[in-house]
Amino acid sequence: MSRDRIGIIGARGLVGTEALRLLAERRWPADQVVAFSTGGTGPPTVAASVAYGDEALPLQAISDETVRGVGWFIIAADEATSRRVVPGLLKNGAIVVDNSSAFRMDPSVPLVIPEVNGHALDGASSLIANPNCSTIILLLALNPLRKALGLESVHVATYQAVSGAGAAAIAELHEQSEAALAGRELPPAVFPVPAAFNVFCHESPLDADSGLCGEETKIIRESARIWNGSTVPIAPFCMRVPVIRAHSQVISVRLCRETTANEIRRLFASAPGLELLDDRENGCFPTPRKATGRDEVLIGRIRPSFGERCNESVGCRDWSFLVCGDQLRKGAALNALQIIERLGGLAPAGVGATASPNDIAV
Amino acid sequence: MSRDRIGIIGARGLVGTEALRLLAERRWPADQVVAFSTGGTGPPTVAASVAYGDEALPLQAISDETVRGVGWFIIAADEATSRRVVPGLLKNGAIVVDNSSAFRMDPSVPLVIPEVNGHALDGASSLIANPNCSTIILLLALNPLRKALGLESVHVATYQAVSGAGAAAIAELHEQSEAALAGRELPPAVFPVPAAFNVFCHESPLDADSGLCGEETKIIRESARIWNGSTVPIAPFCMRVPVIRAHSQVISVRLCRETTANEIRRLFASAPGLELLDDRENGCFPTPRKATGRDEVLIGRIRPSFGERCNESVGCRDWSFLVCGDQLRKGAALNALQIIERLGGLAPAGVGATASPNDIAV
Repeated sequence: MSRDRIGIIGARGLVGTEALRLLAERRWPADQVVAFSTGGTGPPTVAASVAYGDEALPLQAISDETVRGVGWFIIAADEATSRRVVPGLLKNGAIVVDNSSAFRMDPSVPLVIPEVNGHALDGASSLIANPNCSTIILLLALNPLRKALGLESVHVATYQAVSGAGAAAIAELHEQSEAALAGRELPPAVFPVPAAFNVFCHESPLDADSGLCGEETKIIRESARIWNGSTVPIAPFCMRVPVIRAHSQVISVRLCRETTANEIRRLFASAPGLELLDDRENGCFPTPRKATGRDEVLIGRIRPSFGERCNESVGCRDWSFLVCGDQLRKGAALNALQIIERLGGLAPAGVGATASPNDIAV
Repeated sequence: MSRDRIGIIGARGLVGTEALRLLAERRWPADQVVAFSTGGTGPPTVAASVAYGDEALPLQAISDETVRGVGWFIIAADEATSRRVVPGLLKNGAIVVDNSSAFRMDPSVPLVIPEVNGHALDGASSLIANPNCSTIILLLALNPLRKALGLESVHVATYQAVSGAGAAAIAELHEQSEAALAGRELPPAVFPVPAAFNVFCHESPLDADSGLCGEETKIIRESARIWNGSTVPIAPFCMRVPVIRAHSQVISVRLCRETTANEIRRLFASAPGLELLDDRENGCFPTPRKATGRDEVLIGRIRPSFGERCNESVGCRDWSFLVCGDQLRKGAALNALQIIERLGGLAPAGVGATASPNDIAV
């Protein structure tokens, strides 16, 4: 079968919309892109369409007929949808990248960040799992340090955008902010507490035994899998902030070896998928606003964790820095598309910009 | 001279306003409270007044005449103002609590959080320094752990409200948020980058040698002073979030001894100035909104830092938790007033609520 056509399942969601935007940027011809609804609940989607560059794609329901001849799939839907539709797509011979957490801990399914463990795609299964957005952003930052200097332990406090909870969460932040500015209070619906002008614990369910929320558990377990059974201890603490779509993380590492700020800057500057933004003189550092819409994860404010206890030029083992990454791009849709591109799924005519070499290098 | 009257210098600022609110709550008679301008730049303040409960206080300029007979002062102004006015006030025999950073590292001036090192007030100098807001909130949380279990190291990532940068910062967040919701962009003036729907590094100047910003350096140096020369390493990373007035902190500690979540909860629950909010079942944890206007610093989401590596019931040494405290209350005006109350500066008639015993206990 032709591997040319690519299908986006959940094309109306935030991640699906972003996937279509990335394909349009890469100039995949519109007739080679198929937009699927999740076939889930909600009103019938007949006659609905989604934007694709300047064109519109009809929104298809998933059926034997509509998936025929589609060689690649990105599933941007919930776990239940993924579990329901994946078997049929695989049986049909398609390559599927699933953005949900349904298969991430399945040992037979590679869990891949191309820049970190792209080798896991060699001779891969037809189903590949896309990691959690926070895991992707964290490991993209940590990977160069781990390779060059070794990691002894990691602390990460997140400042996560509301987009991770879907389009309804963005709408809620918008409406709540408007109300608050007008002196009114709009009760929360998507989140357990008000999001506007607030900060709160990530809303994923808490594990009674570990005390960790789902997001924190994902970071720990997925990191260990992607790093091939790594035992580096990671202490994540996941918080939501009133930001639309890019996640920020304050990361503190203890390295296995002493190093200097300049060596860390060199490592980050040459690492694929990262962009160094570390201008102390002008106070120019990453922010989620700067990261929004960007493929690269921004990294900077590199400094010894314990300040004056470290002589920067001599070096030390404890370092802290800030990363900001677009949760819908590298944290979701872009990573999935990079996996497909690495497996050979490129725009059929060979036209358009594929990812730059850096974007998919390991 | 009578010690009855109390003067608030900088009575129109955020911290000054909060100090007046606290005095009114405690029912200090209006004729015993004197509101001072900073005598700094700006239009003449003659005939201006400030609210005091249901009454209004005339705003006074600082002069030999106006400070006469005022026994207590809280200075809620910038460093330069404090340096200028303190000598005259002390010469006059007054007790002065200064909220600026002007005298915080002066070895002859006690730097005091009453719950943590109230003993430093015994036989005190007439000038007492109020610590930085982030330091107060952090040490209130850490102190019970340090006393009972010992601290080996501390990581703290802050989520700081814009109120720390003054009333103009709150106005900027308000106006920028309105503009952003209307699809417009309002360039930043108080902060170096947009505050609305963003997260950014604390704006205090960066030290070229340590790489730390002023806020982070204050946390490290003031903590060491308050803890009597403590050498516990603290790794602070200070960020601003679009929140109006309460600061949040994600704190991770390595303790000297193993302990359990329940033991930590017991320590926090019985510590003065803290309120435990740690309901995993209902997902009820501190938020800056809940902490706003509260005297207590809220603390919760207590969990082993590295999750499943720790068996909670057996115990471990690495713990993380969240604190949220009103930066203008306990982080500034309340702490200053508690110092005065501890030194005997109580509402003259003995009427009204003084701080509860917990608030000023050591």
